[in-house]
Amino acid sequence: MNSVTDQLTEVIQSRVSALDAKDAAILLEHYADDVMLFDAVGPLRARGAGVEAARLKTWFGAYESPIRCEIRELEVVAGAEVAFAHYLYRIGGIMTDGTKVGMWLRATVGFRQVAGEWKIVHEHDSVPFDGETTTALVTLTP
Amino acid sequence: MNSVTDQLTEVIQSRVSALDAKDAAILLEHYADDVMLFDAVGPLRARGAGVEAARLKTWFGAYESPIRCEIRELEVVAGAEVAFAHYLYRIGGIMTDGTKVGMWLRATVGFRQVAGEWKIVHEHDSVPFDGETTTALVTLTP
Repeated sequence: MNSVTDQLTEVIQSRVSALDAKDAAILLEHYADDVMLFDAVGPLRARGAGVEAARLKTWFGAYESPIRCEIRELEVVAGAEVAFAHYLYRIGGIMTDGTKVGMWLRATVGFRQVAGEWKIVHEHDSVPFDGETTTALVTLTP
Repeated sequence: MNSVTDQLTEVIQSRVSALDAKDAAILLEHYADDVMLFDAVGPLRARGAGVEAARLKTWFGAYESPIRCEIRELEVVAGAEVAFAHYLYRIGGIMTDGTKVGMWLRATVGFRQVAGEWKIVHEHDSVPFDGETTTALVTLTP
């Protein structure tokens, strides 16, 4: 691992801890103001850290428990000023309505160095769907 | 635009024409052998240009018509040796069973320069889903 890979791995790991603590500030500090978000749930795309802040508030509020996150197969592809990372992650917890969540997703995170700091300028989260039934495949495991 | 942005925009545009012509060779020539694929339809992830070759064969065979592809909101974030691009795209056509397809997706493509050539080392395609019904949202428009 080079030092950029180390730095970005640390950013991603800090986001796992921040979910567990429902600490939106830590999650938001790495986003560029004009980040382009392709989120796992609708809409098709959304632009801006402000949208993400609102989304986190709703998401955190929907969970009775901490939001447990486990990351697997993290790969960082790092250049001097542009980098991206991709990984699988499992979200687990108990929602306020009692629903037990346990679900694997895929993430791709795009970084750009801005004034010496790595910022997330793009994030793409999803689950695949079944082409015949158009059902989202929320029960797949790695 | 810098020249890397121009080059990668051209790669992405060439993929649009290749779909229309169902030319798998053009689509495959830009993939690294060990590309990590997060495809819009299951499984969760797949590794390797060989997997993509098999997928394209099945996909092309399922369409009676050419596969029309329209790209919007393309953004390329280009460094000297690592880059990524994200965009929305619409797939349209008539399948062999008569089904008329017209559907918007999101794509993120990760590039790395290998021996002077830009190779796709990661691709993530998806549609978002409805969190309450777990239905894939295949009728969204930009």
